Amino acid sequence: MSFLQKVRETNPLIHNITNNVVTNYTANGLLALGASPFMADAHEEVSDVAKLANALLLNMGTLNNNIVDSILMAGTSANKHNVPIVFDPVGAGATSYRTAIAQKVAKKIKLTVLRGNVAEVAHVIGESWSIKGVDAGSGEGNIVQLAQKAAHQLGCIVVVTGADDVITDGQTTYLASNGHPILTTITGSGCLLGSVIAAFLAVSEQHSIEAVTEAVSFYGVVAEIANEMVEAKGPGSFQIEFLNQLALVTPELYQQRTLIQKL
Amino acid sequence: MSFLQKVRETNPLIHNITNNVVTNYTANGLLALGASPFMADAHEEVSDVAKLANALLLNMGTLNNNIVDSILMAGTSANKHNVPIVFDPVGAGATSYRTAIAQKVAKKIKLTVLRGNVAEVAHVIGESWSIKGVDAGSGEGNIVQLAQKAAHQLGCIVVVTGADDVITDGQTTYLASNGHPILTTITGSGCLLGSVIAAFLAVSEQHSIEAVTEAVSFYGVVAEIANEMVEAKGPGSFQIEFLNQLALVTPELYQQRTLIQKL
Amino acid sequence: MSFLQKVRETNPLIHNITNNVVTNYTANGLLALGASPFMADAHEEVSDVAKLANALLLNMGTLNNNIVDSILMAGTSANKHNVPIVFDPVGAGATSYRTAIAQKVAKKIKLTVLRGNVAEVAHVIGESWSIKGVDAGSGEGNIVQLAQKAAHQLGCIVVVTGADDVITDGQTTYLASNGHPILTTITGSGCLLGSVIAAFLAVSEQHSIEAVTEAVSFYGVVAEIANEMVEAKGPGSFQIEFLNQLALVTPELYQQRTLIQKL
Repeated sequence: MSFLQKVRETNPLIHNITNNVVTNYTANGLLALGASPFMADAHEEVSDVAKLANALLLNMGTLNNNIVDSILMAGTSANKHNVPIVFDPVGAGATSYRTAIAQKVAKKIKLTVLRGNVAEVAHVIGESWSIKGVDAGSGEGNIVQLAQKAAHQLGCIVVVTGADDVITDGQTTYLASNGHPILTTITGSGCLLGSVIAAFLAVSEQHSIEAVTEAVSFYGVVAEIANEMVEAKGPGSFQIEFLNQLALVTPELYQQRTLIQKL
Repeated sequence: MSFLQKVRETNPLIHNITNNVVTNYTANGLLALGASPFMADAHEEVSDVAKLANALLLNMGTLNNNIVDSILMAGTSANKHNVPIVFDPVGAGATSYRTAIAQKVAKKIKLTVLRGNVAEVAHVIGESWSIKGVDAGSGEGNIVQLAQKAAHQLGCIVVVTGADDVITDGQTTYLASNGHPILTTITGSGCLLGSVIAAFLAVSEQHSIEAVTEAVSFYGVVAEIANEMVEAKGPGSFQIEFLNQLALVTPELYQQRTLIQKL
Repeated sequence: MSFLQKVRETNPLIHNITNNVVTNYTANGLLALGASPFMADAHEEVSDVAKLANALLLNMGTLNNNIVDSILMAGTSANKHNVPIVFDPVGAGATSYRTAIAQKVAKKIKLTVLRGNVAEVAHVIGESWSIKGVDAGSGEGNIVQLAQKAAHQLGCIVVVTGADDVITDGQTTYLASNGHPILTTITGSGCLLGSVIAAFLAVSEQHSIEAVTEAVSFYGVVAEIANEMVEAKGPGSFQIEFLNQLALVTPELYQQRTLIQKL
């Protein structure tokens, strides 16, 4: 049984501490996929919610010190109760505050998955990478090396999204090649991917790299199909159709379209 | 004239203190219906806004102590100025923090309507009810009894939503049977119902149970029609069509489809 | 080359401190237009982000003292680095708190553009204007006078939106007559206009009134075309189609439809 099927059959509870731009789209995306979103960031309850959850998504898109504390409290609780954690260091490198917080979270919390674009992942491990053009970088080889270095340094699975997506735990590395550039014309597409990865991790007992890779590839297939459905009607229609296809793309259709390469 | 017509003709001002997942969908839903949303939760102004408003919606979906204070301040002001209040105790029972806050609000504020699923309503009045499966419960009879008990205990109208919806003030009890399970595939459908109830209350001088029942039944009819319009296109399309139909369903169409039973 | 083309070609970075009802719609609207949104309101980074940005949008739709401080810090940084600022005093006049804050911001920050409805603009400069009916006012003449008075008093460009939109710097005054009333049936249409003005300002070296006027007129043309596309399907469909048309309306189509009059 695919991880996708397991998500749809078991409706894992995903605790999200995410930015206030994408809360609604994230919750609707998880519901469409078949998971159960729980959005909670109050200090009074984040530890309890993280303990209850089947996976935890931490996203620093709209950051302040209050949210940082919520992230650390939830992450600590998740670590204690073996709940897998996906961390999305949105905008690491864009301001010194974000870079510092991203590094702090990666240091204090044992992550299961770090997901970002190449510049964000680079800044989390203290490497410099031009922030101009989030998918920039001088060739695929360097991105793979950077992802592997991050995976070794942080001891977690690293997902670097871009034209192709790299998924690595430092030993095994996959390249996932589905997706569509139209994803970059709607806000929160990267953020929602983090929550989708969390949902797939939630149904993988070993929190395996294969579950993460399927999540990333599935997300790309959904984008391609949604884009074909809306036929250039524009980013508004794509945004809605993407939610539809998160619910409608079957495991069989996914299998026909998925492009994953083991490096 | 139906309450629906009165909402559309008088555009009541609805003050919403709601969670940050559904602010946008709630505001768009109220506008589509014909009401005027006002979202405000700052301590500096909530008392003034609640006084200005024709009804107040309090929703604890994303809770923290700051919002709790806003809820109590706005509720106190609304009570003082005879502004009807709908309270939605989202997630009561899910964490001990939420249960405690829900009970505190129900104790300190004189509610006009309490709206929740069966587990939430049970936890507000200190009854235990399995939180697994929000529409669970061993038969309709028990849910009606629980709703009536809550109405007596809190001295307000209680709406328990589920496969069928129960509306009771402890004396009179209605069962509303419209609606569609697809509502559970989009986030905030329960939250928006709270605001729609507030809009119907706002145009009922006596804040009557009939206004509340019409709101609940209308909402169910809108869901059915929206679902028929989108024909299994998916939850994204349904979410948008639901907004459309909040604006388009006429009092006549509502009358043809409404299923309300007095128990 | 039109300002619209420059926005699409250079993707200016727009820093938004806006209300929590419209963050998602604003970000998606700017992306659809071709600009790059950056939502950040933490005290720890707003000065840095405002410095990085090509324009700054300040919106007080959901206000509290924390956000007020963010607004003042970001505005001060933008002033220091010659980054143009659009200020949207949402709800000025609705509560005394909002009026006081709007006046404080207008006094402490050197604005490039003030955008509001007639009542909001009046309250920013301490004039009384009935708040009932946001587009009220006794005739167009008075609105133009009020806008010019505000422009003189604040030393900035003033945009008063309504049935027709007035754009003035106190010397030169334009009347833009595109648009559609359906815009008032979706939340955040005024807020997003503020961000769109910011994007057009960002590509105008002189921060010219012509750039602002083109932004306002373009927005109205987009609303008309989106409305024609959805043919009374309802406010949900319009909301999505408006995003589509922000991306699809070409400079040529805009030129064919724009209605601007110099007074």
